[in-house]
Amino acid sequence: MHPSVVLLSGGVDSAVTLAYAQQQGAECYALSIDYGQRHRAELAAAARISRERGAQHRVVRLDLRAFGGSALTSDAIDVPNASAALHGGVPITYVPARNTIFLSLALAWAEVLKAPYIYIGANAVDYSGYPDCRPEYLAAFQSMADLATKVALDGARIVIEAPLLHLSKARIIELGLGLGLDFAATVSCYQPDALGRACGTCDACAIRRRGFEEAGVADPTRYQPGLV
Amino acid sequence: MHPSVVLLSGGVDSAVTLAYAQQQGAECYALSIDYGQRHRAELAAAARISRERGAQHRVVRLDLRAFGGSALTSDAIDVPNASAALHGGVPITYVPARNTIFLSLALAWAEVLKAPYIYIGANAVDYSGYPDCRPEYLAAFQSMADLATKVALDGARIVIEAPLLHLSKARIIELGLGLGLDFAATVSCYQPDALGRACGTCDACAIRRRGFEEAGVADPTRYQPGLV
Repeated sequence: MHPSVVLLSGGVDSAVTLAYAQQQGAECYALSIDYGQRHRAELAAAARISRERGAQHRVVRLDLRAFGGSALTSDAIDVPNASAALHGGVPITYVPARNTIFLSLALAWAEVLKAPYIYIGANAVDYSGYPDCRPEYLAAFQSMADLATKVALDGARIVIEAPLLHLSKARIIELGLGLGLDFAATVSCYQPDALGRACGTCDACAIRRRGFEEAGVADPTRYQPGLV
Repeated sequence: MHPSVVLLSGGVDSAVTLAYAQQQGAECYALSIDYGQRHRAELAAAARISRERGAQHRVVRLDLRAFGGSALTSDAIDVPNASAALHGGVPITYVPARNTIFLSLALAWAEVLKAPYIYIGANAVDYSGYPDCRPEYLAAFQSMADLATKVALDGARIVIEAPLLHLSKARIIELGLGLGLDFAATVSCYQPDALGRACGTCDACAIRRRGFEEAGVADPTRYQPGLV
């Protein structure tokens, strides 16, 4: 058992990543960030998933609303529906430098825990085109991390693992099912209601729904009344 | 005038960096992080410096005590005196991944502001040997940042400027004086008292004091009674 930090948003990809890391023999320390996101229901989902999977879980607060600039952190910007969001360019649901910030926090915790691995559920196949999900970005973060820490000076590495990077959403769902993951516990929607029920219209909902369809398995997503 | 984000801790180096950026024609947005540091007095110093210099200022809260592992963020670890801290290796005042986290936050704000520059007062001459103050680290962060953002996809760069990187503390102090900086407003000490008065014994105090001595100028540092 090697300690590993797992970035856990509470959505499908990070939950599968947690289950995968555990299968690899990792003692998982799940890290969630309460960054002022609209979809705070995902934090409750992350706690539930951690509990179900027997992982340590920590939530760090960091109010990215201080910067704004995203539909997920600014009340002044609406979440677009999927057809608008996924049509051309990076959608307004992009949160500036989010993965860089999250990976930096994971790096800090990994260094304190003496954890040789950080797992992130980044995906560059069925995704919203965010720049900080691309393989070349993750490689550059790794190169930076190799110089950033005290343990690096001592010759140790903290390795960023992104096991889902090249998988389709359908393949990710199949992987999670094979690992016994309960997808009903996950929340993907960018604007769920207070009960964590999905809107069914945002890009996160659209990508998730298509994934279950393509995987040919039942979709346990709970939608808001009147939808679907 | 180009907008620029300036990481402002409230110490000598970041204050000089702010003054330098202004001289370069930057419209400065100073960013301080309330990370649970022992020396919260530096946040008041950062606010004072920003006001004196006419810069925008924002404090973002992020509790790095959640991770611990440093004398600056853990009550369980004492701040060592300078002779212990600066003798061999990286001292326990090192905060894991701190500059990576701070630069990531600056990157987020810069992207929202459409600011082409981030200024950081990192120094690799008179410093405590922290890994994330080295030129090779900053170059690697730049390479990562060039891939991390939406503006990067559009062909724009956010450039990390570290104008003090290769200057001695004495030279930094001379530069600040030439820019009209009021060093009495700055706080360097890792364990100041409630009035912001310095301990005189930590590595930050030692490096600061030596800098003023070598520059041959009066040291405006306020020390706790019974010291110096």
